[in-house]
Amino acid sequence: MKPTTFQDVAARLTDDQTPRVWSLLVTVFGELAQDEGAKISGTLLGSLTALLGIKPEAMRVALHRLRKDGWIESERDGRKRLHQLTEWGRAQSADATPRIYDLADVRSPVFLVICEAKTAGNVATQSEAWITSQIVVTTRPALYKNAFITQLQPEDLPDWMRQKIIGRATQDQATALLEQMRATHPQADGLSNLEIAALRILIVHSWRRIILRTPALPDFVFPNLWAGPACRARVAHCLNQLPAQSLGDLET
Amino acid sequence: MKPTTFQDVAARLTDDQTPRVWSLLVTVFGELAQDEGAKISGTLLGSLTALLGIKPEAMRVALHRLRKDGWIESERDGRKRLHQLTEWGRAQSADATPRIYDLADVRSPVFLVICEAKTAGNVATQSEAWITSQIVVTTRPALYKNAFITQLQPEDLPDWMRQKIIGRATQDQATALLEQMRATHPQADGLSNLEIAALRILIVHSWRRIILRTPALPDFVFPNLWAGPACRARVAHCLNQLPAQSLGDLET
Repeated sequence: MKPTTFQDVAARLTDDQTPRVWSLLVTVFGELAQDEGAKISGTLLGSLTALLGIKPEAMRVALHRLRKDGWIESERDGRKRLHQLTEWGRAQSADATPRIYDLADVRSPVFLVICEAKTAGNVATQSEAWITSQIVVTTRPALYKNAFITQLQPEDLPDWMRQKIIGRATQDQATALLEQMRATHPQADGLSNLEIAALRILIVHSWRRIILRTPALPDFVFPNLWAGPACRARVAHCLNQLPAQSLGDLET
Repeated sequence: MKPTTFQDVAARLTDDQTPRVWSLLVTVFGELAQDEGAKISGTLLGSLTALLGIKPEAMRVALHRLRKDGWIESERDGRKRLHQLTEWGRAQSADATPRIYDLADVRSPVFLVICEAKTAGNVATQSEAWITSQIVVTTRPALYKNAFITQLQPEDLPDWMRQKIIGRATQDQATALLEQMRATHPQADGLSNLEIAALRILIVHSWRRIILRTPALPDFVFPNLWAGPACRARVAHCLNQLPAQSLGDLET
């Protein structure tokens, strides 16, 4: 039984829960208005969020927070309100875009590095996962000084090390998303442009919450039961069914 | 200036200190009486230890301790006392012999192994050195289960890891022995068989105290300043100058 209406698909994707509005709006700007000068009208934002079950007041609060945190800036053009990413917000968005939208395995060589002591400065890079306080798996071994370095091949890592690559919570989240995605069979036929855009945003948003908590390392270093690659394939398939909408078309 | 008398050489080798008698006697049995059935007379033991500055009473106490610990057994044959290794003592001695007398680098491939937890049962094997509680360098990687294993090549290990291969005390001891050995130029010419045997025992004994505290791993995993290989070469040179004496010849 294929769900075909917008509400069916949206309900499955959100598991009937409303996503955090300010975070969802970051996804909206990344999907529709990442180009310099791209502005989204309050009207379009209101229509999109209404479709996703978000109340106008919640949207206003979220926009306020995003302005305050430096993500977006807003202006008035006659009777219209226009919102756009700040330079900083656009940089954040551009930074995350390849990780979210390049729906493929990481192809860089990956290394196991043993350091004399954990290097605090490196903890935040997405290209690494610490196995213990001295052992890190990374695509950028040159970051670590006085270290033992060896390139990893598939099958090299025992399971207990793979389990350290990605937190239990993110593993569970990916497994749950995979179930949702498998029950979801979106098709553009019969949907409006706005509905297509809203479904893409829901899919991208769910995926973004997982992939941005996942180190950018090849699949073969992850736990055998890690649902990430299957999620990624399913996200790619669904986005393929739902062509990207242009901001210009949606505004008219 | 070459020291040529027995006393000159012996003084340099012992740094003018008397070695622990019971431990020295273990070296004596290993050098002269490791074969099954080989017995050393009390007379010969007394002459040898006297040459090395050990008092008869100290030797008697040491023999008593070795008997009590199961290393040797003693018997009376007419007016002679005869001492020999027990089966257990001979096994201990045979176990250490290749490490002490094979004066060459370890040629086995060597591996870095990362374990989930330190395996207590393996701590005592001589084929390993623990770098941290989870990381071990070893020639026997198959001993460790659920482990990450990678073969090491020369230059792979950073200095801080090499420093963990061998304790500071043993490093200092090897440096000190190397100095002594460099000042020592033993020659068999002009020495009695007993003196030659006694010098060999002093040299083997000094070397034994270092090599048995050293993991059986290739030189290239040790610290750059580790004096072990130079000691080993010097020990080989000196033993070459002092031919091994047979127990039969010494007893007559």
